Amino acid sequence: MEFSANQIAALIGGKVEGNGDVKVNKLSKIEEGTPGSLTFLSLPKYVEYLKTTKASVIIVSDGITDEKPANTTLIKVKDSRHAFSILLDAYHKQQFAKSGVEEFAVVSKSAKLGEKVYVGSHSYIGENVSIGNGVYIFPNVYIGDNSKIGDGCLIYPGVKIYRESVIGKDCTFHSGVVIGSDGFGFVPNEENNYRKMPQVGNVIIGDHVEIGSNTTIDRATMGSTIIGKGVKLDNLIQIGHNVEIGENTVIAAQAGVAGSTKIGRNCMIGGQVGIIGHLTIGNGVKIAGQSGVGADLPDNAVVQGSPAIDHLDYKKSYVLFRRLPELYKKLK
Amino acid sequence: MEFSANQIAALIGGKVEGNGDVKVNKLSKIEEGTPGSLTFLSLPKYVEYLKTTKASVIIVSDGITDEKPANTTLIKVKDSRHAFSILLDAYHKQQFAKSGVEEFAVVSKSAKLGEKVYVGSHSYIGENVSIGNGVYIFPNVYIGDNSKIGDGCLIYPGVKIYRESVIGKDCTFHSGVVIGSDGFGFVPNEENNYRKMPQVGNVIIGDHVEIGSNTTIDRATMGSTIIGKGVKLDNLIQIGHNVEIGENTVIAAQAGVAGSTKIGRNCMIGGQVGIIGHLTIGNGVKIAGQSGVGADLPDNAVVQGSPAIDHLDYKKSYVLFRRLPELYKKLK
Amino acid sequence: MEFSANQIAALIGGKVEGNGDVKVNKLSKIEEGTPGSLTFLSLPKYVEYLKTTKASVIIVSDGITDEKPANTTLIKVKDSRHAFSILLDAYHKQQFAKSGVEEFAVVSKSAKLGEKVYVGSHSYIGENVSIGNGVYIFPNVYIGDNSKIGDGCLIYPGVKIYRESVIGKDCTFHSGVVIGSDGFGFVPNEENNYRKMPQVGNVIIGDHVEIGSNTTIDRATMGSTIIGKGVKLDNLIQIGHNVEIGENTVIAAQAGVAGSTKIGRNCMIGGQVGIIGHLTIGNGVKIAGQSGVGADLPDNAVVQGSPAIDHLDYKKSYVLFRRLPELYKKLK
Repeated sequence: MEFSANQIAALIGGKVEGNGDVKVNKLSKIEEGTPGSLTFLSLPKYVEYLKTTKASVIIVSDGITDEKPANTTLIKVKDSRHAFSILLDAYHKQQFAKSGVEEFAVVSKSAKLGEKVYVGSHSYIGENVSIGNGVYIFPNVYIGDNSKIGDGCLIYPGVKIYRESVIGKDCTFHSGVVIGSDGFGFVPNEENNYRKMPQVGNVIIGDHVEIGSNTTIDRATMGSTIIGKGVKLDNLIQIGHNVEIGENTVIAAQAGVAGSTKIGRNCMIGGQVGIIGHLTIGNGVKIAGQSGVGADLPDNAVVQGSPAIDHLDYKKSYVLFRRLPELYKKLK
Repeated sequence: MEFSANQIAALIGGKVEGNGDVKVNKLSKIEEGTPGSLTFLSLPKYVEYLKTTKASVIIVSDGITDEKPANTTLIKVKDSRHAFSILLDAYHKQQFAKSGVEEFAVVSKSAKLGEKVYVGSHSYIGENVSIGNGVYIFPNVYIGDNSKIGDGCLIYPGVKIYRESVIGKDCTFHSGVVIGSDGFGFVPNEENNYRKMPQVGNVIIGDHVEIGSNTTIDRATMGSTIIGKGVKLDNLIQIGHNVEIGENTVIAAQAGVAGSTKIGRNCMIGGQVGIIGHLTIGNGVKIAGQSGVGADLPDNAVVQGSPAIDHLDYKKSYVLFRRLPELYKKLK
Repeated sequence: MEFSANQIAALIGGKVEGNGDVKVNKLSKIEEGTPGSLTFLSLPKYVEYLKTTKASVIIVSDGITDEKPANTTLIKVKDSRHAFSILLDAYHKQQFAKSGVEEFAVVSKSAKLGEKVYVGSHSYIGENVSIGNGVYIFPNVYIGDNSKIGDGCLIYPGVKIYRESVIGKDCTFHSGVVIGSDGFGFVPNEENNYRKMPQVGNVIIGDHVEIGSNTTIDRATMGSTIIGKGVKLDNLIQIGHNVEIGENTVIAAQAGVAGSTKIGRNCMIGGQVGIIGHLTIGNGVKIAGQSGVGADLPDNAVVQGSPAIDHLDYKKSYVLFRRLPELYKKLK
């Protein structure tokens, strides 16, 4: 979308100085401004960038500066930070402005949709699915039978939610997320091959959970895989069957948690970390990127390495690992 | 779905003790029972849980116990384990009860569908595709031209199968699986950039293969990428072009196998393992999670580390790695 | 598809020796030929394979050999390598022969399509999207509002491109690719949980970029995530918000780059590498598979390990790591 400086000034109640017809189509930081970008200036220490920024329009707090750059349009407001947040809200709402069921969407007769729900084209809502108020379902989404989606969820294109999943309120699932696929459960048999264990549990996800693109969460073998309230999962993460993750735990991209492991609250787990199955990880635990966790961890542990040990011990040992050739020479 | 104790008793030929109208909507282990869950009791050592379980309905084998818990409905049968497996079968069949081509599905005129095939809405079956009997294709699936899908396959929503893929019988592909995308083949040229090598091979998958969510298997540059009978791949795995994997090999989540590597039968490969290209890995090999394999491995090797070495040697070295600061102090 | 030797000879202007009715349906190397495969022979050193190959048809350069194998049909041409490349081109074109908008596709009224564009069934083109000439969009693709797709792009089934993405010319995106999902940006607040930072930037991708299956590229928090001209990304890679990748850099499968890191030109990054955020990686850098990069790297650095150090130093230290038990014994 493009907006002129005049249109923006009208929206935020500001006064234009310079060319009001100049148009912007993106937001930037003032120091990274490019032609066509809109930025804001609220702190005196950034005033110096007024001379060098290439942004086309800058929202400036009254009283910060009297400078009038030649090639940039200013919009003067009382509080530029507040004005900017009004713009962000407007931008957000404009993205999620649709409602109703689009053409080529399939909604089962037994499904119940709340108020102000949007179901995009080519999405499929199974039998007995319950969708809360204000849920925004982009095109190409699949929601399996008997699932429940709480109020205010945003479900991006290509998300697949298997049957019987229970999703809380205000969750955001990005494209390619898979919820409730079968756990990896196979039992070796006498003929030296594997028999599949039926995966008859489900996935339960709390309120305010955000899940990144192409992350996968398996259903429980029996019972439930549980993602606590406020959990944030980055892209391409694997969560195994019967895993439980406590409230407000944050996991970075490409980490994996194997079956039946329980992770506490407020943990921070780095990218590409692997955690084996059937462990108990405490609250407030921090795990450095690429670590491999093979044993239980107490509350507030901070670990690194594969297998993971205390992070300071790891760092000390790694310093000496690097010096091994030199130490070896000395020894000889 | 919800079922009453009476309905379940009728299905499995059991006798209700307690409230037959109580309803259940999930299965659980007896020690993890919750209100609304159904469980079973077949071994005397679990009788103690009769008093504490919160399950609503328990299927109990005759002769195990005479206890009658106050808040739980019992269903008495000859063999509770057998009765439970009847229920699991019924649950499974109920999931895959549809047949025919749903609205908004596209099936090319030249495609051949077997008997009792289901093609969900928004799925797309290309030219000359052959689909066996009893194949279940969920919504939002793409099957490219000239591919063959064997009898009894289950293909979950959002699976993408590129042209000319050959899939055996009774395979299960979970959501987001990609079969037959181009191998990563680029040749540097004089202008310091890369020219793409055409990827004209295909993917061949044996019978009884299960592939987890968002796993990707590239087509061969020429010839075929081959996944043997009975192989089980977890979620988010990468299989490069021209890889061959022997029968009944099992690979855990987020592992990756680079182009042209051959892996033997009955191997067990841990999560997040990386295997470089053009290697030969024997039969019965075990690779610990997060290992990096950079050389051929003989039959029955058990390895760990990056680069991977014998797993016992790795463990011994890692114990001393952890003690390096202490050893260094002593040395000084 | 199946073609007879006679049909192929007609296409490439060759002369059949042997059974012209034999049919082939795939391409192979001569040493890996199987019944039904077509191969070519251009170098004298491969003549020996004429006797042993199981390929059904071989394109042979005039003057290489006079042998006439019993069970294989030959097609004689002036230059077999050139003839083979004609076939590859024909095969390629045949894959992308469709044009127009298929049934059940949704194209917004405000979207602009170039000439000879194909939009497959169940694809969705948002408001104000601009699609260049000759773009091939397979079924089940989503392209969000205000995005631009350059001439000649190939977009495979199930690709999801979020709003405001800018894609160059001649790019190839494989199935399950996600472009422009929200960056992983959360700020802890007083109630010990996380507030989402609006992600209002976009993704800009240069010409001739190829992206493998299920790879994810997040939009910038503000500004743009930038993938340079000629970059090749393998499958299941994660690119964080505001990352910039220079021209002709190649990244292998399952690697991850965290937010705001800048990577130079002509780098080669191995599989499962992790790079933390806010780093600057120079031009021509090489990073060994599974390495973890936690610090800036100068031009032409070659590194390995987690954390990554110079690759020769790593190898020397790792040799001694393996010998630690032996060295420890000696020391005692």
